[in-house]
Amino acid sequence: MARTSGSHSEITGPRLRAAAQALFARHGYAAVSMRRIAAEVGVQAGALYNYIPDKQGLLFELMKSHLDELLAAWEALPKGTGARDALEAFTRFHVRFHLDRPDAVFIAYMELRNLEPANFRAIEALRRRYETVLEDILRQGAAEGAFDVADSKHAAFAVIAMLTGVTTWYRDEGRLSRAEVEDLYWSMVRKAVSA
Amino acid sequence: MARTSGSHSEITGPRLRAAAQALFARHGYAAVSMRRIAAEVGVQAGALYNYIPDKQGLLFELMKSHLDELLAAWEALPKGTGARDALEAFTRFHVRFHLDRPDAVFIAYMELRNLEPANFRAIEALRRRYETVLEDILRQGAAEGAFDVADSKHAAFAVIAMLTGVTTWYRDEGRLSRAEVEDLYWSMVRKAVSA
Repeated sequence: MARTSGSHSEITGPRLRAAAQALFARHGYAAVSMRRIAAEVGVQAGALYNYIPDKQGLLFELMKSHLDELLAAWEALPKGTGARDALEAFTRFHVRFHLDRPDAVFIAYMELRNLEPANFRAIEALRRRYETVLEDILRQGAAEGAFDVADSKHAAFAVIAMLTGVTTWYRDEGRLSRAEVEDLYWSMVRKAVSA
Repeated sequence: MARTSGSHSEITGPRLRAAAQALFARHGYAAVSMRRIAAEVGVQAGALYNYIPDKQGLLFELMKSHLDELLAAWEALPKGTGARDALEAFTRFHVRFHLDRPDAVFIAYMELRNLEPANFRAIEALRRRYETVLEDILRQGAAEGAFDVADSKHAAFAVIAMLTGVTTWYRDEGRLSRAEVEDLYWSMVRKAVSA
């Protein structure tokens, strides 16, 4: 296992992960072979498993690292005080984070069907933790009298779907700046949950 | 081409389309062969093309018929008068229509990447027609002073993404009825675009 340590492996592993992510997003997990991932990076198919796990493990790793990064980035963010500030922080953060990672977002939503049961449960638990962040903000805001939502959990699902949808239409060369897009979503989210 | 006419073909074609839709939704277009679709219905692979077009044509047909049906169902719906009534009708209609067709919805969004350019343009044009329905309602409501949205087009994208997201979490056996789900989304949409 000499190849798994040292600078060669440290560069090749991430390059293989990046290639796999791009290929999965473009063609779908089921249609992409490990051989094709290896060819994309110029690694011999036989040497592939020195750098990355099998295809299922690779999909799981990509989805898990996306959600780990999402949760860590949210934790690290200054949020102000009160539910309204937290909701604005969440809205702007979610739009920015997802616009920066269209391939990871696409895979995170689309390839759930291809996860083995234990992997699916682990990914669902991480996603649920993130949904709970918003759910708690909505519940806190309702307690403060700032928000009025019939059901915090499902309102959180609705808001997250609305915000994530930005990745399907936003283009940097389009007529709206990222700041304008954040403002547009914040205006709608703020009103959607208002008392 | 005797097999393309008569009751045998009339039953087999739709069964093959239904099987293809279920297999595409479960495994992804790229991972499903025509042979597998034939096997699912018990048709000889060689006879398949008597009933349905090639795989690309089949994907296009599935996506086109989904959007044609969506537009026709909307056209046929009573909508009341004024933008507020139209927005409520649109919201409830969109939730109901999409909850009834999870496989078709999943394919319509996920397999765009697998359409050949001319087919992609045709599907995009149909989807754009549907988005324009909501865009026009929002614009009309702004003109009436009932709504306040910064950008009707992108507000329409946001609302549609929020509503379509219902298919990722709603289960008929869950704690919310469909009527409660419609009410929840209508409450959020109504407020999100309110003046």
